[in-house]
Amino acid sequence: MNSMPPIADLDLRRASLCQLLHWLAVGRVQPQALADAYQTAIERLNPELNAYVDVRYGLLQEQANMADRRRRDGVIGRLDGIPLALKDNFDMAGWPTRVGLPGREMPVEGDAHVVARLRASGAVLVGKTNMDEGALGAVTDNPHFGATHNPHRHGYSAGGSSGGAAAAVAAGLAVAAVGSDSLGSIRIPASYCGVYALKPTHGEISARGLVPAARRLDAVGLLARSADDLTVLLQVLAGYDADDARSRRRRVAFALPDWEPGNLRAGLLPDLAAVGVQPDVIEVFEAAMAKLPHALGDRRTVDFADWDFSRTRRAGLLLMEAEMLGTFAADLGNTEHPVSDRFRNMLGFAAGKSAADYAVADRVLDAATLKMRRLFAQVDVLVLPTTPQGAFPLDGPVPDSQADLTSFASLAGCPAVSLPMGTLPNGMPVGLQLVGARGSDLRLLELAAVCAATLDVEPTYPVVA
Amino acid sequence: MNSMPPIADLDLRRASLCQLLHWLAVGRVQPQALADAYQTAIERLNPELNAYVDVRYGLLQEQANMADRRRRDGVIGRLDGIPLALKDNFDMAGWPTRVGLPGREMPVEGDAHVVARLRASGAVLVGKTNMDEGALGAVTDNPHFGATHNPHRHGYSAGGSSGGAAAAVAAGLAVAAVGSDSLGSIRIPASYCGVYALKPTHGEISARGLVPAARRLDAVGLLARSADDLTVLLQVLAGYDADDARSRRRRVAFALPDWEPGNLRAGLLPDLAAVGVQPDVIEVFEAAMAKLPHALGDRRTVDFADWDFSRTRRAGLLLMEAEMLGTFAADLGNTEHPVSDRFRNMLGFAAGKSAADYAVADRVLDAATLKMRRLFAQVDVLVLPTTPQGAFPLDGPVPDSQADLTSFASLAGCPAVSLPMGTLPNGMPVGLQLVGARGSDLRLLELAAVCAATLDVEPTYPVVA
Repeated sequence: MNSMPPIADLDLRRASLCQLLHWLAVGRVQPQALADAYQTAIERLNPELNAYVDVRYGLLQEQANMADRRRRDGVIGRLDGIPLALKDNFDMAGWPTRVGLPGREMPVEGDAHVVARLRASGAVLVGKTNMDEGALGAVTDNPHFGATHNPHRHGYSAGGSSGGAAAAVAAGLAVAAVGSDSLGSIRIPASYCGVYALKPTHGEISARGLVPAARRLDAVGLLARSADDLTVLLQVLAGYDADDARSRRRRVAFALPDWEPGNLRAGLLPDLAAVGVQPDVIEVFEAAMAKLPHALGDRRTVDFADWDFSRTRRAGLLLMEAEMLGTFAADLGNTEHPVSDRFRNMLGFAAGKSAADYAVADRVLDAATLKMRRLFAQVDVLVLPTTPQGAFPLDGPVPDSQADLTSFASLAGCPAVSLPMGTLPNGMPVGLQLVGARGSDLRLLELAAVCAATLDVEPTYPVVA
Repeated sequence: MNSMPPIADLDLRRASLCQLLHWLAVGRVQPQALADAYQTAIERLNPELNAYVDVRYGLLQEQANMADRRRRDGVIGRLDGIPLALKDNFDMAGWPTRVGLPGREMPVEGDAHVVARLRASGAVLVGKTNMDEGALGAVTDNPHFGATHNPHRHGYSAGGSSGGAAAAVAAGLAVAAVGSDSLGSIRIPASYCGVYALKPTHGEISARGLVPAARRLDAVGLLARSADDLTVLLQVLAGYDADDARSRRRRVAFALPDWEPGNLRAGLLPDLAAVGVQPDVIEVFEAAMAKLPHALGDRRTVDFADWDFSRTRRAGLLLMEAEMLGTFAADLGNTEHPVSDRFRNMLGFAAGKSAADYAVADRVLDAATLKMRRLFAQVDVLVLPTTPQGAFPLDGPVPDSQADLTSFASLAGCPAVSLPMGTLPNGMPVGLQLVGARGSDLRLLELAAVCAATLDVEPTYPVVA
């Protein structure tokens, strides 16, 4: 096998996690060489992309070295030697957890639950990625750490709040990434950057060591270059954590009842334009649907007439902002390193809200739970675009509907997958979203793999080479 | 069997639900005769006790009649012919749901989930019982419907907020009752009135049709005259309800892993006086513990040094009050039938609290969840008095620690049972509380039955005869 020609760096950076695990297993590449390929790319491209806000090459090399040694010894973990990125709102021992805020340079002591699991799996943790200030936003134009650029076009948003993580995966600066999603923060950048994302069932992956936005909404989210990659990551990271109050005994069955593409009942919204989806996105969506008669054979229109996507998204936002007032109290009071006016004003809005307002907003989440339960008694999966629009210029206006199509799965605690759906007339990608009942994460991922194979969306990464 | 002498009314009113089911099954009593015994007692005693605020004898007779007929036809439900009481914060079709508030005389249209289940089981619904105004309190001295008196002593509180229900069960005016418990509202009156109570695991019994106090705390609670009675009621009422967002797939295993009295690890607080338990209650508690070496053999002191019972109870109270501002908005604005100043002032306190305060209080519930998880990794059951004090005179001061020992199980969503523990020097009863991990409801009930048999507390109901 060692006589096979080495794999080009660009192929190492475009390959899926599963492909890389195979190449590592058969000795086509060593962890050290893999890390080098990623490090070289980061050194060259990150100044332009600004996907990472903190990379430590010494630690990267050290981890790669140890991975090399483990592989020689034949004792490896599930993700051994795979370079992964981490959104900067998870604790990683020895690194600051900046959450996109200024003045947080103190290294933290402990690892977040997911970081500990990744370490135990042998993953090589490359660095921490850019995000919206305090995770409040979906643009990743951070006033303290700069904007992350969309790998598909400089000057365009990568989405957010996990924008740096999505850009790193799309540009081949990380094989996959772990971020967070409270109303869409994993799925929105996945849609804009043309990568795969999973927001799991609420409580499925422990959020211990993730800086809380709104505990009832917060989910550890995953970004990767294929649906199968997401499945592997979920298997490594999911499971009950007694030290996370919101963690639940495993609900995601890893062996699923048989299903075949076309047997699932797929729910479609009656009118995407009515819920604010842009015409060019509708066109791509309809073209995708036309290609998926086999995977999504049994299609049914579902009734969302009683559901105000925008209003319910704002209810979730209030919970986030109200909780952030407590989470970020010290940051808001830091006069030496002040937060932005935008951030202060957004939380100021919540500061004017009462405890009764919070309770009313929280009831919307109960309503969403019931809405989804009823929906998933009628269909097995809900199929819709991930975002109402594609990536927009960083110097233009920010559409306020970004999270309208993602937030309801968060409110209801349901799993949702985003996969590349096609390319908009301006050359930018946009995502297809599959939402399922709680616990149906793996079925969604399998369906996403079938859809992806059928759609065969060609990835184009102008910045990658 | 019909040649056996009829059972005296007083015995019918003192018997447990299980005993009555047996007598009904063997024909020693007919549903009609049972209903008559209860009706006669209610007519005679309720003017003095004020346990019921709404009884409709016509409907009672009608239900008893149908139960008689079903029994003759041999097609009966699990609780067929058993007279039960319902706290006045559950919807019962054709009756107003007053929640202890004035001006709510409009009959509602639908049945609460538990009412529908009781009807389907053949139970005879006697009437609706008195409670604290808006369920906010633990005294049942209602400004609009009057005080419920403790059956053990006129002029003493029956506890609350399910005070009318507990008094009805204790005085033999209902075989059992369904109430609600958000911070202790079932267990406190059970302790004061000398009856048995279960607050199940959160989400185990659907709360649909219960007027919400705080959805994360609200539990349908049960009151009865034996632990076995509570088990039968739980079996009838528990189960998943897709239309209640907080309802969960069944977690209470109905077949339990083998356990024997003495094998359970029983956790005890190191210092009851330090958490505000009155000396006379401590004395009764220690006497009970001395009698239970077999049932509670493996005793361990548990650490609650990090837990402030009073502060955490107040966090739960804030959630209740904040949510009640929305639930009772129309009642607060009703100038024709105004709520009491006390009620208005308590909710006024919450009106001054912010959404951020709510989020902070809600985090206390997460902390309680973790505290209990860690506790129940060390012990199987926590054993403590239900209330820090016994019933107090209605014209005296109200102790503000009433819910200190009950609320933490509510905050953590854990099941808790209260059973009569003994008699205080002043002749009033006080309850023993067993708290377990989520889902351990049936084991708690079995343990309660063993403890009750050992303690053999003699019920004394001065008002009953």
